[in-house]
Amino acid sequence: MRTSQYLLSTMKETPADAEIISHQLMLRAGMVRRLASGLYTWLPSGLRVLRKVEQIVREEINKAGAIEVLMPVVQHAELWQESGRWEKMDAELLRFKDRHQRDFVLGPTHEEVITDLVRKEISSYKQLPINLYQIQTKFRDERRPRFGVMRAREFLMKDAYSFHLSQESLQQTYDAMYQAYCNIFTRLGLDFRPVLADTGAIGGSMSHEFHVLAASGEDAIVFSDESDYAANIEKAEALPPQGQRPAATQPKTEVATPNAKSIDEVAAFLKRDAAAIAKTLLVQLNPELSFDEVKALLANADADVLENTWRSKVVALVIRGDHELNEIKAEKHPLVASPLQFASEEDVLAVTGAKPGSVGPVGLTIPVVVDHAAAHLADFVTGANKDGFHFTGVNFDRDITTYQVADLRNVVEGDPSPCGKGKLVIRRGIEVGHIFQLGDRYSSAMKAGVLNEEGKHQIMTMGCYGVGVSRIVAAAIEQNHDEYGIKWPVAIAPFQVAIVPMNMHKSVRIQEAAEQLYKELSAAGFEVLFDDRKERPGVMFADMELLGVPYHIIVGERNLDEQKVELKNRLTGEKLMLALSDVVAQIKSL
Amino acid sequence: MRTSQYLLSTMKETPADAEIISHQLMLRAGMVRRLASGLYTWLPSGLRVLRKVEQIVREEINKAGAIEVLMPVVQHAELWQESGRWEKMDAELLRFKDRHQRDFVLGPTHEEVITDLVRKEISSYKQLPINLYQIQTKFRDERRPRFGVMRAREFLMKDAYSFHLSQESLQQTYDAMYQAYCNIFTRLGLDFRPVLADTGAIGGSMSHEFHVLAASGEDAIVFSDESDYAANIEKAEALPPQGQRPAATQPKTEVATPNAKSIDEVAAFLKRDAAAIAKTLLVQLNPELSFDEVKALLANADADVLENTWRSKVVALVIRGDHELNEIKAEKHPLVASPLQFASEEDVLAVTGAKPGSVGPVGLTIPVVVDHAAAHLADFVTGANKDGFHFTGVNFDRDITTYQVADLRNVVEGDPSPCGKGKLVIRRGIEVGHIFQLGDRYSSAMKAGVLNEEGKHQIMTMGCYGVGVSRIVAAAIEQNHDEYGIKWPVAIAPFQVAIVPMNMHKSVRIQEAAEQLYKELSAAGFEVLFDDRKERPGVMFADMELLGVPYHIIVGERNLDEQKVELKNRLTGEKLMLALSDVVAQIKSL
Repeated sequence: MRTSQYLLSTMKETPADAEIISHQLMLRAGMVRRLASGLYTWLPSGLRVLRKVEQIVREEINKAGAIEVLMPVVQHAELWQESGRWEKMDAELLRFKDRHQRDFVLGPTHEEVITDLVRKEISSYKQLPINLYQIQTKFRDERRPRFGVMRAREFLMKDAYSFHLSQESLQQTYDAMYQAYCNIFTRLGLDFRPVLADTGAIGGSMSHEFHVLAASGEDAIVFSDESDYAANIEKAEALPPQGQRPAATQPKTEVATPNAKSIDEVAAFLKRDAAAIAKTLLVQLNPELSFDEVKALLANADADVLENTWRSKVVALVIRGDHELNEIKAEKHPLVASPLQFASEEDVLAVTGAKPGSVGPVGLTIPVVVDHAAAHLADFVTGANKDGFHFTGVNFDRDITTYQVADLRNVVEGDPSPCGKGKLVIRRGIEVGHIFQLGDRYSSAMKAGVLNEEGKHQIMTMGCYGVGVSRIVAAAIEQNHDEYGIKWPVAIAPFQVAIVPMNMHKSVRIQEAAEQLYKELSAAGFEVLFDDRKERPGVMFADMELLGVPYHIIVGERNLDEQKVELKNRLTGEKLMLALSDVVAQIKSL
Repeated sequence: MRTSQYLLSTMKETPADAEIISHQLMLRAGMVRRLASGLYTWLPSGLRVLRKVEQIVREEINKAGAIEVLMPVVQHAELWQESGRWEKMDAELLRFKDRHQRDFVLGPTHEEVITDLVRKEISSYKQLPINLYQIQTKFRDERRPRFGVMRAREFLMKDAYSFHLSQESLQQTYDAMYQAYCNIFTRLGLDFRPVLADTGAIGGSMSHEFHVLAASGEDAIVFSDESDYAANIEKAEALPPQGQRPAATQPKTEVATPNAKSIDEVAAFLKRDAAAIAKTLLVQLNPELSFDEVKALLANADADVLENTWRSKVVALVIRGDHELNEIKAEKHPLVASPLQFASEEDVLAVTGAKPGSVGPVGLTIPVVVDHAAAHLADFVTGANKDGFHFTGVNFDRDITTYQVADLRNVVEGDPSPCGKGKLVIRRGIEVGHIFQLGDRYSSAMKAGVLNEEGKHQIMTMGCYGVGVSRIVAAAIEQNHDEYGIKWPVAIAPFQVAIVPMNMHKSVRIQEAAEQLYKELSAAGFEVLFDDRKERPGVMFADMELLGVPYHIIVGERNLDEQKVELKNRLTGEKLMLALSDVVAQIKSL
């Protein structure tokens, strides 16, 4: 491709509204342009990368035995009503009416459509297992689209869905897809990690996310420094502290803490470490529980606690001041509403008699759920349930008699690994893939079954497997860039080789050499970007670096005197002099 | 691919709701499934064909110098308001609101988006011409989607848009795209014709449609039997009859024609040929004309005609009884409203004094526009503007003094070709491509210009070029099928070779031979469908014929005795005995 006949569209300036480096570089390198909020046009060089990612994904998913189909973007509402998601999903599911006033959605995923297809096309156990996938444009009406194609409204996704009659069969396909995902990200040339993930509201039995490691990643992922253990921080278990809780040595004492509300303020005021303070958060009771169920869950509590809990619908969560609440873990506690809802300030005041900054577990007549680490504290500080006051010298069992203990917090660096080996390390990751043992969430609701070996109708069990194809492009840049621009892994670079002739328009010799190299390299099957613009060499170098072409061949007068050109490796910065006659062979060997 | 691990999904029965053969065969062969009205899921074998068509289109369009981009399906309303199409387009343009109540559309085409992109990215004549395309899912909310993917609501389209500063440059790209389209349809293995097309409401200067010839085609296309002339019937010019109009020989006579209203009824009642009757159709006056403009267009008319025309807003069109009105031609007459609107029955009665079945041009005080062929009639029959009566022996100039002559009818077989050579032949076609010299319709409205060589801002001129990728799949079937199923051209067959082992599950020898062939043919790069199901041979033969695999290798006991297999050519029906060792070489040579 000649730049003179191409839509290069590079920019020198960093666009003001692009917050992250991949978004900035994709705009500057002319890979995408914003059409409207969360909607992007892929320009030629961006599309080349996208298609390469797509093709690697397709090849590896095919190898794993999945079969490609293509489902519509536009789906009718009836299927979503059948699965229950029409009501459950919020405005992220874009709903609209067609000309006949029938309800439709723009597909954010295709569980319903594929389950409908399979229940119609597959009737016998002999046709199972089957794994169907598509690579297709999807739409999610994000409340706040941002970060360019990283969190766009319209995006390209690979979504696969497998159907089985046994957990064993599901596990086999799941393992094959796990391996396919590892192959994909390895072939893409990315530093990635598969991590255990939470199965979320759907409640399947197993799930892994695949993360591209990058300092800018939105997700915290957790590894053991001595084993293969890796998990999303949402999922990573915090082991209970070992050994006995220290004995109480101090009396409980009420102290005035004027204007000290946050943990940091209280710690500074009382000159205590945040780790010696218990933070108390009031959240809503699980609204799905009946009175009898609450009663069973509060078997050891006094009658007034049960009564007050049922009336106030509030539960107290206690974690150490230096720890973060893990909302996913909290939601899993049977007493806690899922999704998690914090109690309103009025509710906090009504239940505790104080505003949120002065709340503590002492004397509360609602359930108190304490994180393992907080439950290991002695002589600690808490709010006194009285505005402007805290207690010091608080101790469990003596001052707080009825409470439950659970894993409620995010792990922190240095925590012991839940696998039993090593300590935890935390890194940032960008989620680019997610595999999931779905179970019968959709197949049951939609009555998708087949005749099994005994001739009986049996509901299928499902797996689903997603790859964010367009997101991978951004994630690859987050991981591979420097101050000059993108450093594409060779497998997904828009072009493999750039030819940069210096002042070609003033020198027939340079022009001829460059044209000849362009011909030879193209004939050898390389994707070559030939910069034949009438631009200064500096502009051309800068554009090729920005665009991230891995190999640059610089054709200049002085080197031509010796029948040589310079080869620059964009990834390593290495420069090499090559004989003109040797260029194709050398590039091939790289 | 093994059928046992594939989603074959063939059906014996013809689905009741599929009206045309391609839709029936695509359902029966398991190529597509209907999700909802006009929305189809592409099953694995259908998708294989679709992707092959897509790839051939991509390769040829790339060769023509166009550059691929990818624009969003979802577009914001502002661009459509800027171009004026937000108001102009009917419900076919699907409009919806996002979660923030902003207006959006699902893109039926992308003129607005690409024009917006180019006005932002291209600033100088040096960057022109440029031709950008995409292959992308589009949505058109058809009032009555039908014929499967032939007229679906969601479909796959290749749309290209070129930008220029001169008509000469536009013509060059147009010619290159014309050639690319010819290459595409030739490579696809389809019998096609490019035909001159009407430029329609957009009013560009030149347009060609590409039609796949098929008896079931919705469009009539017209050829000369002695030259290259080819046009859509909408566009094909009807030459005026040669020679003098015969002289009048009969007096105008009013005859009762009770209950004879249609041309056929009048012809039968009066025992005259339909070609001797003039049919009169009242349509609405062009509402964009001012009184002075109407006056200028009716220079020779009496004052009462002008006055009555301005009051009634109605124009009479006269064509021969055996001819069809060509609405596109009629709309182009300056007096006639575009789009064409027939006068209501009340208006007809008010203007003529009769109901539509008895209307004629004699004595009308509105403009009369007569088709060339009708204007050549003498002693003809027309309605008498009196219910139940016609005139015979009517003659122009004597009985109808003020009228205009124009080309208003569809050509018919045998008409002289407008190119001057040969007679016209009419065939049926399916429109699968359309190229168009757009002019500045969008670039003017959206102020898309660049600095020209003189340093002045100049609005660009545009071309646009569409291919209905998913429609091609259906059109190919309409053209290539027999009573057993689809007969794919090799270039787009879902598989090139089918291996059909007879009773493999009872014979180790057959199984081994079939497996060996499968291995060898796959290794040689062929796409092979290996029918390893436990099915009767008849079922397997029928499925492979239905699916349209071009070459079937039948592995049977008796032939294996001689180390042979049978090769059946699905397209020609030919059968050949091949030595086992010779199969790969033979298939390669085909």
